[in-house]
Amino acid sequence: MNDLTADYADAGFGRAIEWGERPAVIAIDMVRAYFQPGAELYMGSGDCLDSAARIIAAAREAGVPVLHTRVAYGPGGRDGGLFFRKVGALRHFVDGAPGGLGEIMPEVAPRADELVIVKQYASAFFGTSLSATLASGRIDTLVITGVSTSGCVRATAVDAIQHGYLPVVARQAVGDRAAGPHEANLFDIAAKYGEVWDEDLVIARLKGAPS
Amino acid sequence: MNDLTADYADAGFGRAIEWGERPAVIAIDMVRAYFQPGAELYMGSGDCLDSAARIIAAAREAGVPVLHTRVAYGPGGRDGGLFFRKVGALRHFVDGAPGGLGEIMPEVAPRADELVIVKQYASAFFGTSLSATLASGRIDTLVITGVSTSGCVRATAVDAIQHGYLPVVARQAVGDRAAGPHEANLFDIAAKYGEVWDEDLVIARLKGAPS
Amino acid sequence: MNDLTADYADAGFGRAIEWGERPAVIAIDMVRAYFQPGAELYMGSGDCLDSAARIIAAAREAGVPVLHTRVAYGPGGRDGGLFFRKVGALRHFVDGAPGGLGEIMPEVAPRADELVIVKQYASAFFGTSLSATLASGRIDTLVITGVSTSGCVRATAVDAIQHGYLPVVARQAVGDRAAGPHEANLFDIAAKYGEVWDEDLVIARLKGAPS
Amino acid sequence: MNDLTADYADAGFGRAIEWGERPAVIAIDMVRAYFQPGAELYMGSGDCLDSAARIIAAAREAGVPVLHTRVAYGPGGRDGGLFFRKVGALRHFVDGAPGGLGEIMPEVAPRADELVIVKQYASAFFGTSLSATLASGRIDTLVITGVSTSGCVRATAVDAIQHGYLPVVARQAVGDRAAGPHEANLFDIAAKYGEVWDEDLVIARLKGAPS
Repeated sequence: MNDLTADYADAGFGRAIEWGERPAVIAIDMVRAYFQPGAELYMGSGDCLDSAARIIAAAREAGVPVLHTRVAYGPGGRDGGLFFRKVGALRHFVDGAPGGLGEIMPEVAPRADELVIVKQYASAFFGTSLSATLASGRIDTLVITGVSTSGCVRATAVDAIQHGYLPVVARQAVGDRAAGPHEANLFDIAAKYGEVWDEDLVIARLKGAPS
Repeated sequence: MNDLTADYADAGFGRAIEWGERPAVIAIDMVRAYFQPGAELYMGSGDCLDSAARIIAAAREAGVPVLHTRVAYGPGGRDGGLFFRKVGALRHFVDGAPGGLGEIMPEVAPRADELVIVKQYASAFFGTSLSATLASGRIDTLVITGVSTSGCVRATAVDAIQHGYLPVVARQAVGDRAAGPHEANLFDIAAKYGEVWDEDLVIARLKGAPS
Repeated sequence: MNDLTADYADAGFGRAIEWGERPAVIAIDMVRAYFQPGAELYMGSGDCLDSAARIIAAAREAGVPVLHTRVAYGPGGRDGGLFFRKVGALRHFVDGAPGGLGEIMPEVAPRADELVIVKQYASAFFGTSLSATLASGRIDTLVITGVSTSGCVRATAVDAIQHGYLPVVARQAVGDRAAGPHEANLFDIAAKYGEVWDEDLVIARLKGAPS
Repeated sequence: MNDLTADYADAGFGRAIEWGERPAVIAIDMVRAYFQPGAELYMGSGDCLDSAARIIAAAREAGVPVLHTRVAYGPGGRDGGLFFRKVGALRHFVDGAPGGLGEIMPEVAPRADELVIVKQYASAFFGTSLSATLASGRIDTLVITGVSTSGCVRATAVDAIQHGYLPVVARQAVGDRAAGPHEANLFDIAAKYGEVWDEDLVIARLKGAPS
């Protein structure tokens, strides 16, 4: 534990919350825009994609539900409000045609029976029926994979605990365009909002290993 | 004013709120499932469709934004939660193919530059980014047309005032499968949640007539 | 089953959803304003109060959580927005002093260990953390008691199913100022949003009777 | 502009959004728990308190609404759900007595006509009626002051833009227990969610200076 973590622990942050009885896995915005070399939002690495694919495979084998998100906007991005104006690169997600930058990467492609949530904002909970789906499905733990750590992953983790679900962020399965924001946000999540675990531990729990 | 309205007025209900400066019109769920003879949800009349079409035309002419909603579910209707199980007829909106029962009627078809909000629940605000679109567009008044009065119209009117927007329900432009629930819900809306106006008055206001 | 109910059933409405594994009871706005003779909002009867008291007693005996709501506004009712302006009688809930019209009636007074949710709008879910409390408490069924049927009870029932919880409205434990809106709203709830049960059946289920 | 900011700008992040026509100021959780030496959550500095006080004074002089938040929990913190269990220090906010750690600091004490929003979670929007208050008040810009930058300030800024309001974070008027998380979160906010301005510029705008 480093000094900052120790300081936060002394102040009463970062207590562990136990893995629940009904987990689900969510794959956030793993679309061409972030992984295709040359795209404006290209992050420079696809490592998190491979990690997420392994976690999704483990979930499917264990019968744990897998959900996906992608971003799409209507004409002019008006349903993106101020966020659409703040992040100019979001224009690539307007009226997404199949094969476009808004398409989910093949490594983590949704199975035909899996839900794909279309969102307009950072949090997968905002402006979507995700929370209702989790509540009516009696889910209590949400494993988070996807991009980006400092954007949609962080926003989704904060909203997960706010809505009543334990967010477990799989460290290797989330990514960002720079190491600084990636690490800073994982620190904040572990201190205040949820668990940050290595891929191996997430997979072990999905397979039913006791905590 | 009938006795019930008078009794409610004495108890402090039903005060008028003035039409704002930036209205928008919403057309709720005006899809084949409700208007196509023979369909399980067929309501028996298309009068509200014609009224809504006249209101939408007036809005377009005045440069007032028009928004549309339709219902669609993912595989198994899991994103419809308990509501999908309660109302069995919602199964017609799973994986909606073009031309299917979830398609918006030609009389009120969206223009290419108008937003179509896809929803899973009764209120057009629930599980959608509608409120963010209205807030970022500085809308203050929401003219409501569509179906059904006792279902999605009522739920949307309640949520409109809860979210900070004056709902103005156009009496002839909303419909239900029976007169009883239609009238009972218009009464509740006028008493507690918003304005219920005749089509003529709505159109006059959209054209800029002073109140 | 009357004709209207049969017509709705034919159209695919009103399917029963089973009582869950973890119920909670909510008592909505059972405050002096509605039950004290002479008050502007006085409903004329306290029968629902006695019924709610019996349901709450059964819940406490069975270890089922009981939650309460009351309405309160800050200075000028600005946190009530347009709803505060629409329903003039809400001014009685500004800056509620103990013993005032916003105080919960003694028949259903909260126990010291029970949560009292302060709300500004019709739905007990709107602008409160109720949904997060239910989700983190793994509640799946929400027994609804309180007032009024056509206002906060209906709005809470609609939001309950939207958020993923089965609303079970106890017919004798909810009340309104007139029979028409009371019955009309119970009809809508049973058709589209949840279960409407007699007090006896609710109490039997709270005591663990099989369905 | 440093390298990281330039990299993000190249990727289409961090476009400026203009100050609106109707601003409000929010002071988040500026309570004894963070500013009283010896308290578990004590941050070590009160500088942000003085900056926030200057901004609030300018807002009041200009007739701009000022809103406040504080945290409070019911019995056992059950209305804090998993967040209450994750951050152990939140137990200080249970059943807050006047004069306790949940009391707002005198430097930024609410005026009698200002709204104090009671919240249970990180975002001032979550589980409160803040968004409805802003929408019904036609607010378009939310100046954010308070604590902590990496917690409630960040969560509120993200939710502000999601709900349709431009968040303008006043750099000197927000604080954290360590410089790293403070700076990292201001970077993320500026890149993706809103404006981060010096106190002087915020005050100039509140006084009506053109942008």
